[in-house]
Amino acid sequence: MRYELYYWPGIQGRGEYVRLALEEAGADYADVARERGMAAMMKMMEVSSGTPPFAPPFLKAGKLVIGQTANILLYLGSRHGLAPKAEAGKLWVHQLQLTVTDFVLEIHDTHHPLGPSLYYEDQLQPAKRRTEEFWKERVPKYLEYFEGLLESNGGFYLTGRRLTYADLSLFQIVEGLRYAFPKRMKAFERNIPGLVDLHDRIAARANIKAYLASDRRIAFNEDGIFRRYKALDL
Amino acid sequence: MRYELYYWPGIQGRGEYVRLALEEAGADYADVARERGMAAMMKMMEVSSGTPPFAPPFLKAGKLVIGQTANILLYLGSRHGLAPKAEAGKLWVHQLQLTVTDFVLEIHDTHHPLGPSLYYEDQLQPAKRRTEEFWKERVPKYLEYFEGLLESNGGFYLTGRRLTYADLSLFQIVEGLRYAFPKRMKAFERNIPGLVDLHDRIAARANIKAYLASDRRIAFNEDGIFRRYKALDL
Repeated sequence: MRYELYYWPGIQGRGEYVRLALEEAGADYADVARERGMAAMMKMMEVSSGTPPFAPPFLKAGKLVIGQTANILLYLGSRHGLAPKAEAGKLWVHQLQLTVTDFVLEIHDTHHPLGPSLYYEDQLQPAKRRTEEFWKERVPKYLEYFEGLLESNGGFYLTGRRLTYADLSLFQIVEGLRYAFPKRMKAFERNIPGLVDLHDRIAARANIKAYLASDRRIAFNEDGIFRRYKALDL
Repeated sequence: MRYELYYWPGIQGRGEYVRLALEEAGADYADVARERGMAAMMKMMEVSSGTPPFAPPFLKAGKLVIGQTANILLYLGSRHGLAPKAEAGKLWVHQLQLTVTDFVLEIHDTHHPLGPSLYYEDQLQPAKRRTEEFWKERVPKYLEYFEGLLESNGGFYLTGRRLTYADLSLFQIVEGLRYAFPKRMKAFERNIPGLVDLHDRIAARANIKAYLASDRRIAFNEDGIFRRYKALDL
């Protein structure tokens, strides 16, 4: 089966967590809006489709249309060896992914604290204050939680000796924070040696390495979740 | 099996979505921190527990400890007739719940746009601006999406003729917005007659009605997600 991924064509954004899972799995997929344009994507979001997604990304898998990043990964995980098949392990990996999801929204809020419908330039002062709090309180809380999980099971992967889609998402988090906040992240990395090592090992995996070097990987830019704004990286 | 729900004892918060599902299902559960104090909850959050939740709420179900509100509902849904058992329907209801989850975070951000670690009083001006955008852009986008789903399948429940946990969560959204923004919500309700009707039918269900009248239902207050701040309700 050839999957169809629907996501905004110009950014990594939330679609990237799905792309990384599809690439690691070596799955066959079309990145629809990049290959065929936006109209195909917008059509799928009409109520008349029966189960319209609220927002991209969504994945078409045969007749199924699955929305919400973490839900897509829940579906893909057990099919492609990126999560346990048994209920307890499946719920645990999904729970971790939902915590990544919360963190991703907080990352987005650093440059859009007044909401997604105003421009960054119109919320610069609040963005500075939110970013301060983010690095003082939230980054340590989230990343040290994941670091603690890695440490407590010997440092291999988040949930033990097997890679899951949650590990791939943490790779993206480290990569993204390095892009958006190079100075702050450089200073912070000493607190999370396990996560940095996990990031490096994932970057070196054959399928991920090939993906990152391909033009399927969109470059970071200032329309996505992770944005490099000098005013926010002191 | 007697479930154990772990959540902050003084607020409805995110735990309320789980409580409503447990109550509708007539499930046997302990609300641990309310009944036995906070220490029992904090102990479960230590890394040494193996699968420590990042934050409350979490549910102990036999040996399983499940964190993240939507993940708990995913687990409970198929066991208590609050979601389809087949994969397609299960994923669809979960997808809707994850969209509710996103909305809940945006509701919280109206009074905490600069982040959860600062006081409301220290972010009053940003809160006013975020709340304006929230009611102008985000409430219509979210609630009219759900309204459209209700309409498109005849007005019974979100996914068709059977109640799911996502319907119970929408009851709480309507209830909460009425509490937090009585004026704004009163004006907005004319746009969402289907959701208001859904809310009323859920409030009249035997188990929910008994729950709402009991002291197990914590009253809304200004420590939860939905807060009544006059400055934000113009």
